[in-house]
Amino acid sequence: MTSLIQSLHSDRQGGDKLHEECGIFGVYNHPDAAALTALGLHALQHRGQEAAGIVSFDGEKFQSERRLGLVSDNFTKASVIDRLEGTSAIGHVRYSTTGETALRNVQPLFADLAGGGFACAHNGNLTNALTLRNELVQQGAIFQSTSDTETILQLVARSKRGRTIDRLIDALFQIQGAYSLVVLTNKKMIGARDPLGIRPLVLGDLDGSPVLASETCALDIIGAQFVRDVENGEIIVINEGGIESIKPFPQMKPRPCIFEYIYFSRPDSILLGKSVYNCRKSFGATLAKESYVEADVVTPVPDSGVPAAIGFAEHANIPFEMGIIRNHYVGRTFIEPTQLGRQLGVKRKHNPNKAHVTGKRVVLIDDSIVRGTTSVKIVQMMREAGATEVHMRIACPPITHPDFYGIDTPTQDQLLAATHTMEEMKEYIGADSLAFLSIDGMYRAMGYEEGRNNDLPQYTDHCFTGDYPTSLTDREGDEDFRQLSLLQEQG
Amino acid sequence: MTSLIQSLHSDRQGGDKLHEECGIFGVYNHPDAAALTALGLHALQHRGQEAAGIVSFDGEKFQSERRLGLVSDNFTKASVIDRLEGTSAIGHVRYSTTGETALRNVQPLFADLAGGGFACAHNGNLTNALTLRNELVQQGAIFQSTSDTETILQLVARSKRGRTIDRLIDALFQIQGAYSLVVLTNKKMIGARDPLGIRPLVLGDLDGSPVLASETCALDIIGAQFVRDVENGEIIVINEGGIESIKPFPQMKPRPCIFEYIYFSRPDSILLGKSVYNCRKSFGATLAKESYVEADVVTPVPDSGVPAAIGFAEHANIPFEMGIIRNHYVGRTFIEPTQLGRQLGVKRKHNPNKAHVTGKRVVLIDDSIVRGTTSVKIVQMMREAGATEVHMRIACPPITHPDFYGIDTPTQDQLLAATHTMEEMKEYIGADSLAFLSIDGMYRAMGYEEGRNNDLPQYTDHCFTGDYPTSLTDREGDEDFRQLSLLQEQG
Amino acid sequence: MTSLIQSLHSDRQGGDKLHEECGIFGVYNHPDAAALTALGLHALQHRGQEAAGIVSFDGEKFQSERRLGLVSDNFTKASVIDRLEGTSAIGHVRYSTTGETALRNVQPLFADLAGGGFACAHNGNLTNALTLRNELVQQGAIFQSTSDTETILQLVARSKRGRTIDRLIDALFQIQGAYSLVVLTNKKMIGARDPLGIRPLVLGDLDGSPVLASETCALDIIGAQFVRDVENGEIIVINEGGIESIKPFPQMKPRPCIFEYIYFSRPDSILLGKSVYNCRKSFGATLAKESYVEADVVTPVPDSGVPAAIGFAEHANIPFEMGIIRNHYVGRTFIEPTQLGRQLGVKRKHNPNKAHVTGKRVVLIDDSIVRGTTSVKIVQMMREAGATEVHMRIACPPITHPDFYGIDTPTQDQLLAATHTMEEMKEYIGADSLAFLSIDGMYRAMGYEEGRNNDLPQYTDHCFTGDYPTSLTDREGDEDFRQLSLLQEQG
Amino acid sequence: MTSLIQSLHSDRQGGDKLHEECGIFGVYNHPDAAALTALGLHALQHRGQEAAGIVSFDGEKFQSERRLGLVSDNFTKASVIDRLEGTSAIGHVRYSTTGETALRNVQPLFADLAGGGFACAHNGNLTNALTLRNELVQQGAIFQSTSDTETILQLVARSKRGRTIDRLIDALFQIQGAYSLVVLTNKKMIGARDPLGIRPLVLGDLDGSPVLASETCALDIIGAQFVRDVENGEIIVINEGGIESIKPFPQMKPRPCIFEYIYFSRPDSILLGKSVYNCRKSFGATLAKESYVEADVVTPVPDSGVPAAIGFAEHANIPFEMGIIRNHYVGRTFIEPTQLGRQLGVKRKHNPNKAHVTGKRVVLIDDSIVRGTTSVKIVQMMREAGATEVHMRIACPPITHPDFYGIDTPTQDQLLAATHTMEEMKEYIGADSLAFLSIDGMYRAMGYEEGRNNDLPQYTDHCFTGDYPTSLTDREGDEDFRQLSLLQEQG
Repeated sequence: MTSLIQSLHSDRQGGDKLHEECGIFGVYNHPDAAALTALGLHALQHRGQEAAGIVSFDGEKFQSERRLGLVSDNFTKASVIDRLEGTSAIGHVRYSTTGETALRNVQPLFADLAGGGFACAHNGNLTNALTLRNELVQQGAIFQSTSDTETILQLVARSKRGRTIDRLIDALFQIQGAYSLVVLTNKKMIGARDPLGIRPLVLGDLDGSPVLASETCALDIIGAQFVRDVENGEIIVINEGGIESIKPFPQMKPRPCIFEYIYFSRPDSILLGKSVYNCRKSFGATLAKESYVEADVVTPVPDSGVPAAIGFAEHANIPFEMGIIRNHYVGRTFIEPTQLGRQLGVKRKHNPNKAHVTGKRVVLIDDSIVRGTTSVKIVQMMREAGATEVHMRIACPPITHPDFYGIDTPTQDQLLAATHTMEEMKEYIGADSLAFLSIDGMYRAMGYEEGRNNDLPQYTDHCFTGDYPTSLTDREGDEDFRQLSLLQEQG
Repeated sequence: MTSLIQSLHSDRQGGDKLHEECGIFGVYNHPDAAALTALGLHALQHRGQEAAGIVSFDGEKFQSERRLGLVSDNFTKASVIDRLEGTSAIGHVRYSTTGETALRNVQPLFADLAGGGFACAHNGNLTNALTLRNELVQQGAIFQSTSDTETILQLVARSKRGRTIDRLIDALFQIQGAYSLVVLTNKKMIGARDPLGIRPLVLGDLDGSPVLASETCALDIIGAQFVRDVENGEIIVINEGGIESIKPFPQMKPRPCIFEYIYFSRPDSILLGKSVYNCRKSFGATLAKESYVEADVVTPVPDSGVPAAIGFAEHANIPFEMGIIRNHYVGRTFIEPTQLGRQLGVKRKHNPNKAHVTGKRVVLIDDSIVRGTTSVKIVQMMREAGATEVHMRIACPPITHPDFYGIDTPTQDQLLAATHTMEEMKEYIGADSLAFLSIDGMYRAMGYEEGRNNDLPQYTDHCFTGDYPTSLTDREGDEDFRQLSLLQEQG
Repeated sequence: MTSLIQSLHSDRQGGDKLHEECGIFGVYNHPDAAALTALGLHALQHRGQEAAGIVSFDGEKFQSERRLGLVSDNFTKASVIDRLEGTSAIGHVRYSTTGETALRNVQPLFADLAGGGFACAHNGNLTNALTLRNELVQQGAIFQSTSDTETILQLVARSKRGRTIDRLIDALFQIQGAYSLVVLTNKKMIGARDPLGIRPLVLGDLDGSPVLASETCALDIIGAQFVRDVENGEIIVINEGGIESIKPFPQMKPRPCIFEYIYFSRPDSILLGKSVYNCRKSFGATLAKESYVEADVVTPVPDSGVPAAIGFAEHANIPFEMGIIRNHYVGRTFIEPTQLGRQLGVKRKHNPNKAHVTGKRVVLIDDSIVRGTTSVKIVQMMREAGATEVHMRIACPPITHPDFYGIDTPTQDQLLAATHTMEEMKEYIGADSLAFLSIDGMYRAMGYEEGRNNDLPQYTDHCFTGDYPTSLTDREGDEDFRQLSLLQEQG
Repeated sequence: MTSLIQSLHSDRQGGDKLHEECGIFGVYNHPDAAALTALGLHALQHRGQEAAGIVSFDGEKFQSERRLGLVSDNFTKASVIDRLEGTSAIGHVRYSTTGETALRNVQPLFADLAGGGFACAHNGNLTNALTLRNELVQQGAIFQSTSDTETILQLVARSKRGRTIDRLIDALFQIQGAYSLVVLTNKKMIGARDPLGIRPLVLGDLDGSPVLASETCALDIIGAQFVRDVENGEIIVINEGGIESIKPFPQMKPRPCIFEYIYFSRPDSILLGKSVYNCRKSFGATLAKESYVEADVVTPVPDSGVPAAIGFAEHANIPFEMGIIRNHYVGRTFIEPTQLGRQLGVKRKHNPNKAHVTGKRVVLIDDSIVRGTTSVKIVQMMREAGATEVHMRIACPPITHPDFYGIDTPTQDQLLAATHTMEEMKEYIGADSLAFLSIDGMYRAMGYEEGRNNDLPQYTDHCFTGDYPTSLTDREGDEDFRQLSLLQEQG
C-alpha cells in the first residue's frame, strides 16, 4: 500500500533506486503462526524496510504488533512473538521513507466490524483511493491513517452485503489499481490479486498449513512447498474446510509488473514459473548482444547488478570480476568531513577493487538508472581508481514515466531518461559509452521472441512506455483534492 | 475518558487509592500554545500519569504528539514542542493502568471530518458509550480505539447538521454520563461540561488568550487569571471573534463530584469558589468533632492526608506531627528479598518517624479507604514502631459503591466498606479504633449546615450513597454486549 | 567521595541547595545481599541522585553494576539483581552533577589487588587527595577515575603491608579529610569512619547479618535493628568469625557535621542518638524564640522546611499551614514559553495555596539559604499571591564558608551570606523581615545549653564559622596542581 | 588486543568462522580528525563488530567515546563527533563476543601518565601478558580492564625512562606476541608493529596529514594516498616536525599472518603489495588445479567465497553462478518455530538459487572450515534443493591448531580438521567429495613457486602447521595463573 499523498506527489527522497512499497505474508492453522510470519517477512525485507507488522488471531482476539524498523530488530524476541498468540497470522513489511511515516500507517490495518475483526495487509497502490476517501468522509467515515489501504477497510465496513467475503468483493469492485492482499478474519485467511495481477502473490503449503506470500523466497525460509501463483483477479479463501478459489471479475489476460524481474524480487524467487536470477542473466546476455563493447573486465554495481553482469560477461566472453567491493556495514550517514569531496556517500558503501580497475577497460553493469546521481559517482570513482575506459550498460530500458502501482518513483522531471537524450545521459554520467536494454530486448530476454505485444502487452511496463494498464482516477483531478493528512503525528 | 471495557469490569489494579482518569487543558491564540499546554498538563499530572497528548493547530495542519508516560518525561524537549506548531493547542493526561493501554487510546483523539479536523480531549466517562458504539459499528463505522471518547467523534462525524458546533451538540444530546471536553477545530476551541457538571472545568485568561483547564492550578502555573468555572451543561465556543456561551440542555441544578474535594483535585486548586485545601481541613475538623479520641499525636498518611490531619489536630487540640516520612524517590517495584516480610511495599514509600510514634497514642488521618490493604500495613508499621495505640480516622464516609463517571474503582465486592461492618473493618485494619466522616458531616464541612439535601443532593456522591445521578445504560445490558477490543496492541 | 576537580573548584550548578555527595551501604552474609543493598540505597537516595552502584561477592568473583540515574530506575529488575550474586554486597549513591560525571567515577570502585579484589564505597571528601595522586602518578600509578576515592585504592595497592586490613590502615594514615567507608574483600566487609567522625555511619543487624549504612532509615527499610553508630576513628571488621573493632588513630573527640541535622539526613533517621526530625523542630522553636514576629500563618518551604515550621508554629503559637503546594511530578526542565516571566522554574515545582496566603501575614520557614536565588522567587510568589507581609525565617545560621568534606557548595563569592549584610540580604530577597538561627541557638537546639564550645566545638560547623577541622592540603597549593582529568569521557 | 582470559581459554562461541579481533586507525593534524577516524573505522568494521572507540586530543585535553556496537550506529551523530574535538585522533574496532565484553575493555585504552595522557589502540595479542600482569599487580598496579593491552600501558607508566617514546620502547621489549599499535599522546601519534609484523599496519597521507590504518581500504574511504606498509619491528613517530622511523629491535625477516589474505582483510585491500582479492582468486585457481572435479556449476558460499570461486571457475572452466543467495538483512536470531528443522539458522541468511542447483552437479567454494557446522548445513541445503552432486572445495589448508595472536579460534578439540581424517570430514559434511588447498599450494598461490620455506617460513601459518613464531609464555604456565577478571561488570 502507499500513503495517498505520496502516490500523487512523490518526491520524498533523493535516492537513486526505485523502491518497492511492500511485502505481505500469511499462514493459516499452524501452531507457530507468528514466528513463521516473522521469518517470512524477514525473507521479504528487501520489499520494505521502513516498518513491519503482524496480526494474529487466537480464536477469540486479534493480537497486533506494528513497529517502525526491520523485522530482525523488532520481531525476534520471544516476548513479542509470544504476545502474537494464535494459529493464524498475517504480516506486512513496508518501504522506508520519512515524514508521513507514522505508526498509524503501518500494516496490517485492522477494523472491528460488526461481523468481527478484519485485518488486511496490502502490496500495491490504488489509483482511485483519494476519490473514494472523499466520498466516504462526506458520509461520516473517520479515517485514522493516510494509507490507501484504509479505503478498502472502510468500503468493507459499509458494504450492505452480509458475509465478510461478499463485503470484500463488494469493496474490490469499487477500487482501481494494483493490489495483492492478505486478509485475516476470525474464520478465514483470504488472498486476493487485482484483475491484472500487477503485484505478485504465491500460495504455499507447510505440512498442510496454507501459506500466502509475495515471493517464493518467503516459502523457502520456512521450508514450505510452493503450490502455485495466485492468479490475476483471483480470490483465495482459506478456512477450516479447505481452500476455495473465487474469480469474481471478468476474465483478463495477466499483466504482471516487469520491474519485479528487473529489480524488486529476490534473485532466488521464482515468479510465474520464471527464475528471477535467470531473467536478470538473460537481460545481461541480451544487453551484451545488443550493445557489445571491447573491454578487459565486466563489473557489476553490487549487489543488484551481479546476475546481469554474469550474463553479460558470459555472452561477451569478457572476464567477470567484482570490480567494486561493497561494505556490508552500511548503516547511517556519517558526518561529512568538511574537506572531503562529494564522493564520500558512495565510498562509504563501495570501494573500487583496484586490482581489476586500474589500467583496465571496464564495463559497468547496473540494473537500472533512475535519477542517475549514483551512476555519476560510480563512474567517477572508477576513473579515479585508474580505469582507462568506463562503459555503462543498463540491464533495462530507459525509465521515462512514474509508477502509480506501488513503486516509489520520483516525479517525471527527475527521471534522467525522461529529460535527457542518450547522448546527454552519457555526458552527464561521464561514461565513455552508455547503453540500455531495448524494450523488445527485454521481452525477448523474458522468452517472447517476437518482443513486446503492443496490442496486449505481456507485462505492466509503463515506466518504460507510459502505457498505464488502468485508469488513474485520482491523478486526473489532482488539483481539486482537499488536503489529506491534516494530522501530523510522530511514530 | 475511560476505556469502555474498564468502566464495566474494572479490577485492573490492586492499589488502594481511587484514581482520577484524566485532566484536560487548552489554550487559544497564544504564540506559545504547545509549551503552555505542556505546563498546564504538568500541573494536572496528578489526574493521570499513564499517558499524555497534545494536539496543536497551525492554521493549516494539526500536529499531534501522544506518548505513554509523564508530561515531564515526554513534553520537555524543544524538538517535541517545536513540532507542535500553531497558536492553539489542547492536551490531555490519562491515568496509569496496564493492559488496555495502547497508544491508540491516548488523547486527544482526532478525526479528519469533511469540514476539517476535530481534536477532542475528554475527562469523565459516558454511561451509554458501548450501546452507541454497537449501533455505529452496525452502520459501518470503524473504531480505532476502545475509548468511550471515540463514540463522541463518530457521532459528530455522522451528524447530519452542517456546522461543527451543531454536530457536537447533536452528539452531546445522544450521550449520557460525565464529561468535561476540550475540542480544537481549524477555527475554534470549544469547552463543554455535562448537564450536571460532574467533572470540573474552568475558564482562564492569559493576557487575552482564553484558557480551559480541569483545575485552577493549571492556570496558576502559566500565570493565567481565573475567569470563572464553566457551568454545568454549558458549551463555551472560543474563536477569533471572542467567547460565546451556549446552553443547549434543559437547565438543571449542578451536581459536581464530591471526590474532587476529598482526594482528586490538588489542594491549591479552587473549585466552584471553594479551596480544596480548606475543604479537606474542614473534613478533618468535622471528623474530630464527630469522632474525637484522646491521643498524643495526630499524624497524616502522607501526603494526601496532611490537610485533614491539620484540621483534625487543630480542632482536637492534639499536636500535629509528620509521624510517617515519605520517600520522595518511589519509582518502580523492587525485587523482594525472600526473607523479608510483607511490609516492604509500604516501607519503600513510608517510614515511621519513631520520635513521634514510639510510646505514643497515635491518631492516623487518611483521606479515604478503598480496599483497606494499605491501611492494614500502615497500622502494623505504626505498631512495630512502638505506638501504644493507633486510632484510624478517615476524612470521608465509607465507600460502598463503584463509580461510572471517570474514577477507577474496584468492583463492589472489593470495596472494604461494602463488605464489612464498621467493627469488622476495625479488626481487619488492626486499629484500636476506626471512624469515618459521616455523610451529613461531609456536607456540613462543605458549608451546608443542614447536611445532605436528599431530594436534590448538592454533590454527586454515589460512591458513598449508591445514588447515581444519571442512567447507566451500558450497565443494564452488561452481559449481552459483544466483545470489544478484539485487537490487542502493544505500544 | 568527590571528584577531585570539583572539590577544589566547585561551582558546577546554579541550584540553591547544598548537596550531600553520597550515601553508602553494605550487608554481610545474607542470601539476598544485592536486593537488600538496592533497598538500602533507595532509602539513602536523598544523599545522591546522580548514580548508584553495587558490588557483590559470590565466594569466587566480584560482580558489579554501576549506573547513572536513580536506584529505582536501575536496580529494580530481577535481571540486574540476579547478576549481583553472592551473600555480601556493598553499594553507593552519588550526588547528581554534570560534566565530570562519567561512569568511571561511579562507586563502589574496585581494584584487583595481589591479595584479591577490593571494592570500596566512600562518603566524604579527602583534603589531600590531589597531592597524593600526583606523587602516585610520578611513581607509575595509572588512575582510571578522577575521584578522590581512587587515591585510597592506589595507596592500599602499594602498601608494603601484608594483610588487606593493614594495607587499609596504612592508607588511612596517609589521607586527610572526611570519610565514611564501606569496603568489601573476598573475606571481609569493613566499615571505617575518619578520626573526627565527620560523615555518619551506623551498624545494624538483620537476623544475624551485619549491616553498615549512612543512616538508620536504610536499616528501617530492610527491617534491620540498629546496633550502634560506628565511632569516630573506628574501623569495623566483619568476617565469618564475627565483628571486630579497631581504633588505630589517637583518640579524638568526635566532631560530626552539623549539616546532617540541618538538611542532609532524612528526618526519620536517628544520628548519634538524636532524632533528625526533632532537631529540626528544635531549630524552628529556637528560631521562634530568637526571632518571633506577629503573623497569621507559618508556612514551610516544602518539603525540607516542614519540621522546623512545625516547631516554629508551636512555639510562636501561630497556625501552621501548607501555604505552598509542591508538585510531586517535577522531572525535567520545560521549554520556557517566551512570554512568561522568570517565575516559571519555581512554579513548576511550587504553587501558593492562596487560601492561606492571600491577605495574610506569612512567616516562611526554610532550612537554609545558599545563593538566595530560590528565596527571591518564593517571596515574590507569595506577594503575587496576595500575602500582605512575608517574613523569612531560616532554621540555621548564615552560610559564609564553602565545604571541603563532601558537600557540594558554591565558591565563597556565591554564598549570599558571605557577601551581603543582613539588611542587604533582606532587600535582595524582598522579605519584610529576615532572620537566621544564631550559632549558639543552633547548639542550644541540639541540647548544649551553653551553646558552642569554641575550644572544642561539638560539631563540624565551618560553613557557618570558617573553623575547618582538618588541614586543607590540596587547597593550599591550588594553583600549582597539574591538570587532572585529561580524559573527558561521556558515560 | 584480546581479553586475557579469552586468549587462553577461548571457546566463547559456536560460530563457524574465525574472527579477527581488531582494527586500528589514526590521523594526525587534520581539522576533521574524529570524523575521518569514524570513517576509517567504518571501513575496518569487518575486523571487529563488538565495540568501537575513538580518542582525540584537542591540544589540552583528550576526549574519548567508547561504545558497544557498530561504528555506524554510534559514531555518526554530529553530537558525538563534535565532542571529539581536536586535530588528532585514534580509533579501534573490536570483535563481537559476550561475557567479558565490558565497556572497560573497549579501546583505545587511556592512561594519565606523569608526562601527560597516553591513548593506545592495539590489534593483535600478547603471549606473555598474564605473566607480566601478575608481576605488576604484585608491585601494586591496579588494572582496570582484563585486556592484554593494559599491560602495555602499565609497563609504559612504570618505565624509568624519561621520554614517552623511550618508555614505549622499554615496554615493547618486555612483551611477546603480535601487535600493531596506534598511540596518541599530547605531542605525537605513534604506530608500531611487532618484530615479525604479524598483524598489518599501513601508513597513508591525506593532503599532508599522516594516517595509520590496519588496511588500505581505510585509506580509500577518506581519499588518503597509500604511502607504504609499516615494516615489521618498526616504530613510526609522527609529530609536528614530521615522520620518524625507529627500528629498536634486532632485524628479522617479516612473517605476516597468512589468514589476512585468506579471510580477514577486505578483498579491496592491498597488503604488502598484494591484492587480497587476487590472492583469493589465486587460492581458488590453485585449488582447481590441485582438486579439479567435473561439475555443472561453481558456487561460492557468499560472500567470502566469491573471489576464490571466480578463480576456481575460471581455471576449471565451469560456469560461475551465485547458487546461494544471501539475505542482506541478517540481524538477530529469530524465535525458532518449534516444528521446523535445524536448517533455519542457515536459511535465515542463505537460500539456494534453485535455477542453478536443482539437477546440477555443484562445486561449493568456501574460504575455510573451522568447526564444520555451517558446511554440514550448507551441503544439506544444496541437496534438499535438488543438487545431484555436491563437491566441497576449501580455499585454504585444514585448520589444525588454535591461534594466540589475535584471532578468535576454538580450542583444538573443536577444530574439525584437528580431530577428523579427510574421509571423516567428508562424511561429516555430507559432501560427495571434499578437498582443501595444500600448504605448498597456498604459498605458490601467493607467488612462492617453491612453496613454503620450512626453514624461514614466509608467513605466520601456525593454524595449519602448528609452527608458532613466538614463545607462548602464558600458555606454558596455564594452570598456575591466579584468576583474572575477579570483577564482572555489565556494559
